[in-house]
Amino acid sequence: MAKKGEDFSAWYNELVERAELIDKRYPVKGMDVWRPHGLAVMNLIDGLIHAEMRRTKHQEVRFPTLIPETEFQKEADQIKGFGANVYWVTHGGESELDVKLLLRPTSETAMYPMFSLWIRSHADLPLKIYQMCSVFRYETKQTRSFLRVREIHFFEAHTAHATWEDAEAQVLQDLEIWERLAEKLCLPYALTRRPDWDKFPGAKYSVGADTMMPELKTLQVATMHQYGENFAKPYNIQYEQADGARTFAHQTTYGMSERLLGAIVGIHGDDKGLVVPPAIAPLQAVLIPILFKGKEGPVMEACRKAMATLEAAGVRAHFDDREITAGSKYFDWELKGVPLRIEIGPRDVESGKAVLVPRDLDSKQGKSFVEASNLAKEVESALAGVQQRLREKAQRIIVEHQKPVITIAQAKAAEGIAVLPWCGSEECGLRVEKETEKAVLGVPVRVQGDKVVEEQHPSAACGACGKGTTMVMRVARTY
Amino acid sequence: MAKKGEDFSAWYNELVERAELIDKRYPVKGMDVWRPHGLAVMNLIDGLIHAEMRRTKHQEVRFPTLIPETEFQKEADQIKGFGANVYWVTHGGESELDVKLLLRPTSETAMYPMFSLWIRSHADLPLKIYQMCSVFRYETKQTRSFLRVREIHFFEAHTAHATWEDAEAQVLQDLEIWERLAEKLCLPYALTRRPDWDKFPGAKYSVGADTMMPELKTLQVATMHQYGENFAKPYNIQYEQADGARTFAHQTTYGMSERLLGAIVGIHGDDKGLVVPPAIAPLQAVLIPILFKGKEGPVMEACRKAMATLEAAGVRAHFDDREITAGSKYFDWELKGVPLRIEIGPRDVESGKAVLVPRDLDSKQGKSFVEASNLAKEVESALAGVQQRLREKAQRIIVEHQKPVITIAQAKAAEGIAVLPWCGSEECGLRVEKETEKAVLGVPVRVQGDKVVEEQHPSAACGACGKGTTMVMRVARTY
Repeated sequence: MAKKGEDFSAWYNELVERAELIDKRYPVKGMDVWRPHGLAVMNLIDGLIHAEMRRTKHQEVRFPTLIPETEFQKEADQIKGFGANVYWVTHGGESELDVKLLLRPTSETAMYPMFSLWIRSHADLPLKIYQMCSVFRYETKQTRSFLRVREIHFFEAHTAHATWEDAEAQVLQDLEIWERLAEKLCLPYALTRRPDWDKFPGAKYSVGADTMMPELKTLQVATMHQYGENFAKPYNIQYEQADGARTFAHQTTYGMSERLLGAIVGIHGDDKGLVVPPAIAPLQAVLIPILFKGKEGPVMEACRKAMATLEAAGVRAHFDDREITAGSKYFDWELKGVPLRIEIGPRDVESGKAVLVPRDLDSKQGKSFVEASNLAKEVESALAGVQQRLREKAQRIIVEHQKPVITIAQAKAAEGIAVLPWCGSEECGLRVEKETEKAVLGVPVRVQGDKVVEEQHPSAACGACGKGTTMVMRVARTY
Repeated sequence: MAKKGEDFSAWYNELVERAELIDKRYPVKGMDVWRPHGLAVMNLIDGLIHAEMRRTKHQEVRFPTLIPETEFQKEADQIKGFGANVYWVTHGGESELDVKLLLRPTSETAMYPMFSLWIRSHADLPLKIYQMCSVFRYETKQTRSFLRVREIHFFEAHTAHATWEDAEAQVLQDLEIWERLAEKLCLPYALTRRPDWDKFPGAKYSVGADTMMPELKTLQVATMHQYGENFAKPYNIQYEQADGARTFAHQTTYGMSERLLGAIVGIHGDDKGLVVPPAIAPLQAVLIPILFKGKEGPVMEACRKAMATLEAAGVRAHFDDREITAGSKYFDWELKGVPLRIEIGPRDVESGKAVLVPRDLDSKQGKSFVEASNLAKEVESALAGVQQRLREKAQRIIVEHQKPVITIAQAKAAEGIAVLPWCGSEECGLRVEKETEKAVLGVPVRVQGDKVVEEQHPSAACGACGKGTTMVMRVARTY
């Protein structure tokens, strides 16, 4: 088996299959089969997103998968951005279709013709909807499970507002939603406003949340887009103001995908297998009886009692009573990433104890003996510990791998994210991309009060043209 | 507005949009947009199905939407059955694909190549998986929301077993699952083994559950198929038996779709709107304050207290405090099908009462005054009452509209389902279809012990050829 520290790519590609998240042997390249374990984790991630959507009063919808070519062509940037990568449906049965249909690469051009019907007056605003669905991209680059696939499990929220300012407030809410999710998913991130040449097709601006993978490449895991009136105009999304005048709505979107799962696999997994954060683990704890001939009865009895306690406490627990060695069981559940192992053997029964082994720690050093009478609380606390350590570990990765530099050559040589002074011009940005052979992620931003603001840096010289500036760019290798 | 009793079809087509279940204005014919209310009901239906799948140890998976033409062509009956109705993806971007891809019309040909990889030995059996997904059919007939659409929200369970008998036991379990679901969905049904010329492409036999719509046409809402080795052979799904010999697996499938929702709309709706069975109502109760000027305070206070009680009891309740007339609120919630209305006015506050109005009864006769101190229990009992009455009403429809007949002419003239003696030959079956201009649903079956058996009838003469027989067929107009 490949080692994570030696060949990350091979390790990742093997692990997603060995842990039975997906099966890559489906006979279409870049389209994987979601196996029960992978889908169960993804469903729990989706569950967290659904909960955030309910909290923020977004309503769930489901749009058709197919979009007529005629609607797709209304927004020129969309065609430029996605046209070369869409799958075309040209025939129904033997007949050629009058209007070709495409498999959605994203749903703006499917949804906005309906927005123009649904939105009549200011009373209809804000309109906040979302869907979880498959989107399709005919990728020509090398595909990789969860990170770059041709059928993508996708989340997209779309909103329409009366004013630019209302849309800005939505972007802020999206960032708050993301912050809450990232904490539960134990994903570290840096927020960056994308450069104009790399923003979403049709957006006024795009903010990306990039996480850091162990090979020190960044991975975009969430994006928020301010569209202004860019789509409202071609799709005629107008509303009547209180004074009777008609004007265009302002729109935003928020997108995430199965990449969230890919990031968790890559960042938290180790050479023994997955490490799934407790918040999204289909099984949070597995209970393994340590059996010695003739002493099975009391151990099995104690295990059954422990299971009843855990289930009553709402812990997602499983009692592994298969007739194989305890060691084989450890191996299986470590591979699947169950965050906590509980062992009960004859001596533990006698002393009223249970043994807890958190998945993220060395099994000798991390082992603890707890009172069986207090099992539910001890397990909850051990799970909180795993969640906390995974979060901190991940946070360190991104903090430790951002490096201020002053020249393009340093930006090229830097591992992780280089932070380079930048005058802001596209010319300098593209020169940096060319000379570093990396991507310009954009300008670091953060939420300050009710605004998204650029990070301010001490005055320095633009790494490309030498002009004085207080702005910086993030530069990194990306997926 | 169309009346249900006068023009069912127009009434149905209007209601699905007026109640905001879906929007038909999407610019591809036969592909509707699921609006929040429609999707919320469907999600609750899906939730019941997920629970049944967990209970019966089926595991959820997600397969790609696209199937290569080469896999699709391995099972000849599939092509015959679906070939004329599939959407073909021929291009990715500008490039023509080497192997054409089709949008799945059902997933046998996507799943079974993987089954042949997953199943190695008898220890891998039974394999029981399911998915909920979109399937696509290029319908040439008239489309109608939920009942005949081109993108179908679909449920499909697929199983593989060691023996024919194990697969038979699975069909029985499927029927049990269906019986439990039908009760919660308040859907009446008749079980019929489809005639050979109308079974699922590739099946040994198919059992359909048909419900009865108010225009006295039957609607297939669930099907179970015994495949035997029919797919195992072309897809090479073999396993090693305990003695080392290799042999083919036996397979079954179970399918349902958004038609479940269409049936509920059609059967239970009335001229005021939808009537949603409590088990799948996104809102089970709506609380409406009856306000008189100067007396608002105590009423609003009592309402807030009532809401806290209902929420604590787990009732999905909504407090409608909009500043519009109570009458407008009644109108809105009756249209949406909320099964129970609760009213609290000043006199109710004084007497410690609340008013309950079940959606399915006349609002005068059905109204009841209950103790506010016992609200949660009263509401639960009122909801159980709605559920029970809807079930009984629906059951009557199908019982009252099955009519034993002895001639083809009588079968043609009968309303609803005609039950006609039949020798069982395809020749006679096709003659009945031709002369009645109706469909032969097949032979009535029921579960008896651990077997699905044909209903036995007194000896009679086949309606077509006159030969003596104890078998009958169901004949009806269908969707």
